[in-house]
Amino acid sequence: MELNKRQQEILEIVKEDGPITGEQIAERLRLARATIRPDLAILTMAGYLDARPRVGYFYSGKKPVQSVADSMIGMKVRDFQSIPVVVAEHVSVYDAICHMFLEDVGTLFVVDESLHLTGVLSRKDLLRTSIGNTDLDKIPVHVIMTRMPNITYCEKQDTLLQVAKKLMNKQIDSLPVVHDSGNGLEVVGRMTKTNITAAFISLADDHEL
Amino acid sequence: MELNKRQQEILEIVKEDGPITGEQIAERLRLARATIRPDLAILTMAGYLDARPRVGYFYSGKKPVQSVADSMIGMKVRDFQSIPVVVAEHVSVYDAICHMFLEDVGTLFVVDESLHLTGVLSRKDLLRTSIGNTDLDKIPVHVIMTRMPNITYCEKQDTLLQVAKKLMNKQIDSLPVVHDSGNGLEVVGRMTKTNITAAFISLADDHEL
Repeated sequence: MELNKRQQEILEIVKEDGPITGEQIAERLRLARATIRPDLAILTMAGYLDARPRVGYFYSGKKPVQSVADSMIGMKVRDFQSIPVVVAEHVSVYDAICHMFLEDVGTLFVVDESLHLTGVLSRKDLLRTSIGNTDLDKIPVHVIMTRMPNITYCEKQDTLLQVAKKLMNKQIDSLPVVHDSGNGLEVVGRMTKTNITAAFISLADDHEL
Repeated sequence: MELNKRQQEILEIVKEDGPITGEQIAERLRLARATIRPDLAILTMAGYLDARPRVGYFYSGKKPVQSVADSMIGMKVRDFQSIPVVVAEHVSVYDAICHMFLEDVGTLFVVDESLHLTGVLSRKDLLRTSIGNTDLDKIPVHVIMTRMPNITYCEKQDTLLQVAKKLMNKQIDSLPVVHDSGNGLEVVGRMTKTNITAAFISLADDHEL
């Protein structure tokens, strides 16, 4: 539920000067007590204000009751991202698979000597290469990786909703979180459907659903 | 926002007999008009009721404006599950990998002759087996699969929140959706973090966030 302008004004008045009676608030706004009665009822029901008989309205002190909708829109990559796991371009497919198991991730990001993103390796890419190939220790990952500019990525300030949509639309497991340094993309994080699932749960937990 | 008992009563009256004036509603409830004014304001603001001058209140006809929170709690497995992909126990690891690619899934469910769930194969299980093993076509999947009773599963009527928590707590990619037939567990669906991500997006889309 969104507050209208008058409700926001009332909230400000009570924050500043509460406890304050309904009459006093009405006076400050140059309105009749009856006019603001519904607004006070709404603000109290929504938990913004508490009311005590013979005292008046006061600010509930709870952090402004944010709706689940507002929380959801406000969720950013920087608050949910995981640590990225990177490998160099010349590493063998065999070593990459070992690295993936060791780090227990589903995707590896490939970087060049200046640590800029050049490729992505999914568990699927590695599995595809490993069946039928016995020389996994002789194939470098840059031969099988997905390369720039075909890599979908995101940035720290993006919303989780934007990331969720990219993951679904591109049918991929993981996005690198990058910082554009001017000469290339530094890999600073990793976003997966696991992060989205964690956000889904935290949304429910934060709002005690 | 939850409606209180009086607000629910008002909603019922308007649904039955609207358009109806505030006075008439108050009369039906044996309350003063002023008493129910905040309730009417709340119901109108929340979109349950529409008010028209000289006509009165009428039911908005929109499906009761459900909050994001309520939508989230109400999300069930049956509305988001994917089609399960199953293999028989005697199938080779090689064939299972091909099947996984062909069906483009991350997890295969293993069933016995009566199509009851006996095991789960993740992309990780298959990748682990495929490195170093050249006889993938000679190893049956039942040798490497995770077996009952170590399989975490869910049912159609479970909530997405329950599923999301199981996926996170057990650190797994996929849950079989099962129906307990009495003699065993029939596999009727598949739930993954992709389904949770889709639910996250649909929550935003449904509420136009």
